[in-house]
Amino acid sequence: MNLSEKAESKQTSRIEAISDGVFAIALTLLVLDIRIPSAKDGEPLLQALLQEWPIFLAFIVGFFTILICWINHHYMFECIHKSNGMLLLLNGFKLLVVSLTPFATALLAKYLLTPHLRLAACVYAGNFALMGLSMAGIWFYSVRQGFMQTMSPQVLKASTQLYFMAGIFSVSIFIASFFSTIVALVLSGIMFTFFIFPKSSIKALVNLAPQKPEVAL
Amino acid sequence: MNLSEKAESKQTSRIEAISDGVFAIALTLLVLDIRIPSAKDGEPLLQALLQEWPIFLAFIVGFFTILICWINHHYMFECIHKSNGMLLLLNGFKLLVVSLTPFATALLAKYLLTPHLRLAACVYAGNFALMGLSMAGIWFYSVRQGFMQTMSPQVLKASTQLYFMAGIFSVSIFIASFFSTIVALVLSGIMFTFFIFPKSSIKALVNLAPQKPEVAL
Amino acid sequence: MNLSEKAESKQTSRIEAISDGVFAIALTLLVLDIRIPSAKDGEPLLQALLQEWPIFLAFIVGFFTILICWINHHYMFECIHKSNGMLLLLNGFKLLVVSLTPFATALLAKYLLTPHLRLAACVYAGNFALMGLSMAGIWFYSVRQGFMQTMSPQVLKASTQLYFMAGIFSVSIFIASFFSTIVALVLSGIMFTFFIFPKSSIKALVNLAPQKPEVAL
Amino acid sequence: MNLSEKAESKQTSRIEAISDGVFAIALTLLVLDIRIPSAKDGEPLLQALLQEWPIFLAFIVGFFTILICWINHHYMFECIHKSNGMLLLLNGFKLLVVSLTPFATALLAKYLLTPHLRLAACVYAGNFALMGLSMAGIWFYSVRQGFMQTMSPQVLKASTQLYFMAGIFSVSIFIASFFSTIVALVLSGIMFTFFIFPKSSIKALVNLAPQKPEVAL
Repeated sequence: MNLSEKAESKQTSRIEAISDGVFAIALTLLVLDIRIPSAKDGEPLLQALLQEWPIFLAFIVGFFTILICWINHHYMFECIHKSNGMLLLLNGFKLLVVSLTPFATALLAKYLLTPHLRLAACVYAGNFALMGLSMAGIWFYSVRQGFMQTMSPQVLKASTQLYFMAGIFSVSIFIASFFSTIVALVLSGIMFTFFIFPKSSIKALVNLAPQKPEVAL
Repeated sequence: MNLSEKAESKQTSRIEAISDGVFAIALTLLVLDIRIPSAKDGEPLLQALLQEWPIFLAFIVGFFTILICWINHHYMFECIHKSNGMLLLLNGFKLLVVSLTPFATALLAKYLLTPHLRLAACVYAGNFALMGLSMAGIWFYSVRQGFMQTMSPQVLKASTQLYFMAGIFSVSIFIASFFSTIVALVLSGIMFTFFIFPKSSIKALVNLAPQKPEVAL
Repeated sequence: MNLSEKAESKQTSRIEAISDGVFAIALTLLVLDIRIPSAKDGEPLLQALLQEWPIFLAFIVGFFTILICWINHHYMFECIHKSNGMLLLLNGFKLLVVSLTPFATALLAKYLLTPHLRLAACVYAGNFALMGLSMAGIWFYSVRQGFMQTMSPQVLKASTQLYFMAGIFSVSIFIASFFSTIVALVLSGIMFTFFIFPKSSIKALVNLAPQKPEVAL
Repeated sequence: MNLSEKAESKQTSRIEAISDGVFAIALTLLVLDIRIPSAKDGEPLLQALLQEWPIFLAFIVGFFTILICWINHHYMFECIHKSNGMLLLLNGFKLLVVSLTPFATALLAKYLLTPHLRLAACVYAGNFALMGLSMAGIWFYSVRQGFMQTMSPQVLKASTQLYFMAGIFSVSIFIASFFSTIVALVLSGIMFTFFIFPKSSIKALVNLAPQKPEVAL
């Protein structure tokens, strides 16, 4: 079965291709939620546009959610060099969550100024938690299977810590969203600062670690 | 005519690119079927969301149908290294079926809880049968034309058995859908377990085969 | 200015990438025209579905129009190895026409069974003529600029004849559509048989040519 | 931290992939704004189609805006060979602006013939200004970080002048749009002639520069 195994360890270029496609479309479909406002007689168009601010806010939040998710996907697949059927499936689950994001975003936009905000925020946070968990799942599965390219053990350890945090943080935000939309929002803001530049966060984690001789993960 | 033939045997990278594009878009367009529910006065939003469960179910079924189709397309084009005009056309037919899937899925979602379920399931199963047949067609045509990369004859034989099964199975599901939606559903479940990890199924088929000396296909 | 010129003669991979994206999306957006039929009380769903046959017909026509366009784009950029600003623009014009195809297709579907068919067919044929002309434009411009990879002069000549025919044929279909939708349809059918397998057509043209010693184009 | 830094300086192929995806989708989504006209009884379809000319005009303007943006993105990433987190974010901001373009275009189309044209033009010009600024931002950041491939200092200087002009010009058009839609339109036309063929403009700038001995930027 050598040949099959050779095929098994092929590069991840097509996983990246379909993922980039789904990310790009999810990013761009968000704009379909922005209806062209109809200016009523006498009312200035500017007012009609400004009244749509919740939709614009949700658009920007949704865009950066997907973008940061892509940035981390990009980092992870710089490190992951092999693939198998289970990784395709885990990545497929991640893409399912990404493709749901325009729905969660539109729900948030529609109910931002209503008493239904709490539930809409929970749905958004739930989508977000699934994103964090699938991200963590892709990383941990790839590490366990030895799919990573050769990299320094400190960087590997710090990356693993970061994506462990992704799971913990995103589930915490989901739980917090049931009790307080504000707390969930603040936690999301903190999480964004960590994950917008994953490499800087990983460097910081490497520098924070006690400078013992190398410890393999 | 050497030069033309050299061009004929070029790599399949652009077939994969357009296919990944169509798969990615079909995966992401499914979400457009999920309407943002309008919570009526007094009714909680949660109830309005939960009442949309058939749409969410159809979304997930449609997503995994296309994803598994992509996983197998991915495997097939790991093996197929050459291409000609007929293969472009066969692949184009497959993409046509993939691009119809959001329609079949939305039809299923709309009529899931109505007396029209039977017909909607037949349409979905018909779409599915065309997917299985086009998959089998791509494989058999490529094998007959000698488009495959060098691979062990056992793996080639087992792969051919798997995609022969894809044709048989998906047509059987279509026929079953006229008589019993439940039977069609159970058959689909069995088929999914075979095709979600095509390489594992192929390994199993290789190991099942009697251990005679090598038999070329 | 050596460096700039070196950049000028770079490969066409990114032209192909954006083109594949636009082709894939245009192919997949066609399905959005297919509305989910609403079965009225008592009326079977099958009847409601079958009544939508003009939309399905237009979907298939539109799909194969774009697919054949992609197949020829694929062939042309197998031959074209260099690029400049004007080629980007010519290709951009082609993509504009491709992206209009879902509109022309939907117009055709809506008016297929009405007295407005003639005009809808003219619009479709006009879109088609622009496609043929832009295809011819890309080819002739690339040949004149010397952007082609080294290829046999017979194949180059036959390819040039084929894409000259693409321009002539598609404009003829447009003109015919003003007088007779049937004639335009028959001409389109003939054209499809030539362009669905561009390499076979080119081989046939090479074999048809009088077997004189080589004549450079 | 050698390994992390090695990863940091990886190629920009995946930035280009997601960008091409977003550009391709934005280009193709524009067509969704073109509604299929409903010919009223007795009224010819041609008249109904021609009455939609503002939508077709906006479609073409929007298409070429995004196309020229892609042409320049293409040129910039021919020159930029390295990447880091901040460049991903800058590029992400650019993609946000690109994905908003179908909205701005549709707004322009809807209000082209109404007294609300001024505001719609301001919104379009504002979108355009953000596009020019993000383009300039990507270029200046990449130059400062040393992400450029080795290129002649004159070409680098001229390219930097061009993208400095992109920022200045697009902001000027935005400001002009508050006072006169016509002036903004004329300025846009001038800007298009510069940016439709960025390499020709750069050559012209190199030739305009006084022929002193080489001055590094």
